[in-house]
Amino acid sequence: MPKYYGGIEAGGTKFVCAIGNDIGEILEETRFATTSPTETLEKVVVFFEQYLNEFPLESIGIASFGPVDLNPDSATYGYITKTPKPGWSDCDVAGVISRYFGIPIGFDTDVNGALLGEYRWGAAQRIENGIYLTIGTGIGGGAIVGGKLLHGLVHPEMGHMRLHRDIERDPFSGCCPFHEDCFEGLASGIAVRQRWEQKPEALSPDHPAWDLEADYITQALHILICVLSPQRIVLGGGIMNQSQLFPLVRHKVLDSLNGYVKHTAILNQIDTYIVSPGLGNRAGVLGAIALAIEAEKL
Amino acid sequence: MPKYYGGIEAGGTKFVCAIGNDIGEILEETRFATTSPTETLEKVVVFFEQYLNEFPLESIGIASFGPVDLNPDSATYGYITKTPKPGWSDCDVAGVISRYFGIPIGFDTDVNGALLGEYRWGAAQRIENGIYLTIGTGIGGGAIVGGKLLHGLVHPEMGHMRLHRDIERDPFSGCCPFHEDCFEGLASGIAVRQRWEQKPEALSPDHPAWDLEADYITQALHILICVLSPQRIVLGGGIMNQSQLFPLVRHKVLDSLNGYVKHTAILNQIDTYIVSPGLGNRAGVLGAIALAIEAEKL
Repeated sequence: MPKYYGGIEAGGTKFVCAIGNDIGEILEETRFATTSPTETLEKVVVFFEQYLNEFPLESIGIASFGPVDLNPDSATYGYITKTPKPGWSDCDVAGVISRYFGIPIGFDTDVNGALLGEYRWGAAQRIENGIYLTIGTGIGGGAIVGGKLLHGLVHPEMGHMRLHRDIERDPFSGCCPFHEDCFEGLASGIAVRQRWEQKPEALSPDHPAWDLEADYITQALHILICVLSPQRIVLGGGIMNQSQLFPLVRHKVLDSLNGYVKHTAILNQIDTYIVSPGLGNRAGVLGAIALAIEAEKL
Repeated sequence: MPKYYGGIEAGGTKFVCAIGNDIGEILEETRFATTSPTETLEKVVVFFEQYLNEFPLESIGIASFGPVDLNPDSATYGYITKTPKPGWSDCDVAGVISRYFGIPIGFDTDVNGALLGEYRWGAAQRIENGIYLTIGTGIGGGAIVGGKLLHGLVHPEMGHMRLHRDIERDPFSGCCPFHEDCFEGLASGIAVRQRWEQKPEALSPDHPAWDLEADYITQALHILICVLSPQRIVLGGGIMNQSQLFPLVRHKVLDSLNGYVKHTAILNQIDTYIVSPGLGNRAGVLGAIALAIEAEKL
């Protein structure tokens, strides 16, 4: 008897809903613009409801834009909390879906969802300790530790690590409203566009923007390797569509670590240590389905 | 029927061996200088052997100076690997003890041991996600994630995170032979001594050394909070005996995060978020006993 799971990729711009199974196949899918919470969640409900006879769901996973409350003991667990997105502050996304369908709900950040999808079906399979970084408009990161998503006090905010900026080389002071020149402030798509006054995708592959970008990504990876000791690092997001960044970053990470972390996975196999996602543009919604599968097991 | 555990704090300068129970009481203890592996491990064996009738051991924990091989699948698991300490390279510490006593052996880094001791009996009790940093001659760090020690590909090397150095304020280029101005290169006891040409303990509490030191520690904590989202951070090691550092670091961490991580544990309870160890100078050997208790459970 096959099992079916619902996945909701809840993005600030668009929602993607899908029905999938436990081998990562997508059976039905829809996508629509994120408007008001009422209208958007109504569309989510209508989508799953029309298939309930054909595909009865075990559980639903929600991989959401943030900030979100992931503390199961909190009164606002499952909420999108304070967001600048109009209408969405204090929105009980998981609660609405849970009350309507009455089945287990998995709820996590979009990046944790994507990581879990990569862990189950993509580039981080059989990796008990891995990292997923999305470097796009913003920068987010998630970690698997001992085969489980890292949560902690809140959840990781890897985009907000402080990095070293050489002011002479990079006078751009950073775009993060909280920390100015943190990782996101220096290396996100917004930072690249503001620094070079061009859209990132308009910069040629040999533009100096990319060497600087690779340096910041390298600093972040050096730190993450020292803190989390991951077995693999997956780099996704729009900026990483600049595929020339991968060899640059791999080379610079080896230089930066300077032989200190003595493991063959880094010293001799850097090409399979720092990798691109395996699930491509289905990563978000497959991640949500992976969250549903985790929720069913609980 | 009480249970007894052996603990070995294997330091580069001295070894401490103790017999304890599962409530963190130490029943017998000895300490001696670290000489050759043969002579030192012989003393370890003699110590435990003399009490075996009175205190039969369930297991023995070893919290060791490094680098160590913690990969259970490795042929050199339980070894101290390449160390500058004469005679100790490729020394099978865990194997020697295991073969002699024929009971389960727990083996980990000194800092992971100390963290586990704090988790069980000290300042990190009931903390499922915590960090322990030792800031002394060198800098090391360990993490508990989901109630378990974080290992990963190798083990954390938190002392080797790269930080931001303002060259005008701090022209000292750092003392790390691998990375120059990483965290350890800038903020370890050796770095403080080289930068100011005085022993750290000879610098007065209002010397500018401590404000700079607090800045580097703050950078590291900001990063660790963004990556690991810990519920508590314990700061130990000789440098942290400068107790004026605690209020400085707490204040600077709040400034640095700038309200971004919205959780009352940070925003309103920083005094119980960044704390000193609870076990004092028994942390090392109690950590080893905590490793023994973990090993018994396996």
